[in-house]
Amino acid sequence: METKLSYKSKEVIISPERPFTIIGERINPTRRKKLAETMAQGDFSIALEDARKQIEAGAHVLDVNAGIPGADEPALLRGAVQAVMEFAQTPLCIDTASPEALKAALEVYPGKALINSTTAEESMMQRVFPLARQFGAAVIGVITDENGVPPTPERRLAVAGKLIQRAGDYGIPPEDIVIDCLALTVGADHNAGRITLDSVALVRDELGVNLSLGASNVSFGLPDRKIINVAYLALAIARGLTVAITDPTVPEIQTTLLACDLLIGRDEYAMRWIKAFRKRTVAAPAQ
Amino acid sequence: METKLSYKSKEVIISPERPFTIIGERINPTRRKKLAETMAQGDFSIALEDARKQIEAGAHVLDVNAGIPGADEPALLRGAVQAVMEFAQTPLCIDTASPEALKAALEVYPGKALINSTTAEESMMQRVFPLARQFGAAVIGVITDENGVPPTPERRLAVAGKLIQRAGDYGIPPEDIVIDCLALTVGADHNAGRITLDSVALVRDELGVNLSLGASNVSFGLPDRKIINVAYLALAIARGLTVAITDPTVPEIQTTLLACDLLIGRDEYAMRWIKAFRKRTVAAPAQ
Repeated sequence: METKLSYKSKEVIISPERPFTIIGERINPTRRKKLAETMAQGDFSIALEDARKQIEAGAHVLDVNAGIPGADEPALLRGAVQAVMEFAQTPLCIDTASPEALKAALEVYPGKALINSTTAEESMMQRVFPLARQFGAAVIGVITDENGVPPTPERRLAVAGKLIQRAGDYGIPPEDIVIDCLALTVGADHNAGRITLDSVALVRDELGVNLSLGASNVSFGLPDRKIINVAYLALAIARGLTVAITDPTVPEIQTTLLACDLLIGRDEYAMRWIKAFRKRTVAAPAQ
Repeated sequence: METKLSYKSKEVIISPERPFTIIGERINPTRRKKLAETMAQGDFSIALEDARKQIEAGAHVLDVNAGIPGADEPALLRGAVQAVMEFAQTPLCIDTASPEALKAALEVYPGKALINSTTAEESMMQRVFPLARQFGAAVIGVITDENGVPPTPERRLAVAGKLIQRAGDYGIPPEDIVIDCLALTVGADHNAGRITLDSVALVRDELGVNLSLGASNVSFGLPDRKIINVAYLALAIARGLTVAITDPTVPEIQTTLLACDLLIGRDEYAMRWIKAFRKRTVAAPAQ
């Protein structure tokens, strides 16, 4: 299935048949004090620098989050989206828990955005899906509902099915729903990683939709998190993950995602691998 | 399915339900001039140092190869096996293309060794399987036959089936055959990696046997091979790989294999991950 995103005439297609889609996660003031401070004052210079670096590092889509406690989120998110749009010709992923902020951002966005995100909670779907329909956006549907995160792959599949069905009720087709199977930390439950991987494979086999993951929760509370997160991306890609919200400016993430594309047949003549290698080699002495 | 290997009373079990099995590949004089020179003179000091380092780095089994052009391979392999056995209480993987050398090594080995390897070529199976039966060894069966490496997962499955069936004719049970789905280089064919991964998954689903891979061919001819090889291990583990012949002294390989165990539920309370982290942290200043 193909999930098409766009910004003006620029299109990005998420699909198992294409290179893995990278959504750059850095424009997010959570736990980034300086970014939060500057954004709160309407200064998007750090955010734009993040945009530049992430696109340079291979991001196909940029996530934009403006959730700063005490700030006017609708105005701020709209401002951040406008600033990033002026700078980068890249589809955006609008990242907010506030329907008002979501609407404010979608109103100024010329194209098909990705909404990050809705859960399968009825109250949430009732707020997000109408906006997605109105503005023609795709939506990340996170596999959790009124009962929390289902403990088994089969029950996560059922929640994924509910997300797609309810989206359909609002006129949103299955290809516009990207399912996030939600990786919980293996530090708390050593089966958490496996259950999510099995859920990814099951949802892919049964529903055929695109699958996303925020791959950093899985390592929460453990040492050397980067190694765990990178390995988890590869494991999930092997089971059917087609897109991730991640930080491509981290060299290990960038190279691992390129290697995975190469190894599952999405890099003809290894051209992207070799090109990126040359770029790394040229860039290295200057660092 | 469980493949049991042993050395005297020490047992190693290869199984999808257990931590990934690492066969240390370093005791192999191919392309290692100094190791070849010393081994050829009956000096196994470098080989034993390789044994020590690999066990320290997490190897469960040690591969021993003594293929040195011009040398008396049966005597040399037997000598190498004896030297390693005196040093390490670890099951061995006897790595040779010579049935005479294989026999010479198996004769002195007290336990259940792993033979590396036979193909599905009739002439090869007729030499290797009787020795495996006679000495009670398990065998790596490489998916290639008189017609070469099959181009599709379905045909690789058929060759795997032939290996298991012919082994059965010699009284060797399926659990004593470890199938190697053979990774060809993605530099020559960008679908090579994917075909092998799909073969791994298909053989696992249809035959349920343990699966091995030499993960370094896949990157032949390409730059930054280590990144590719490590990513390939993770991808293959996600599809069902249970054992690899690899070099655990390479930090990225060691940590990725530990991370994969953690992420697919084979590391309860993340104890092995945390223990290895502590060891790295303590070891680092001295390096």
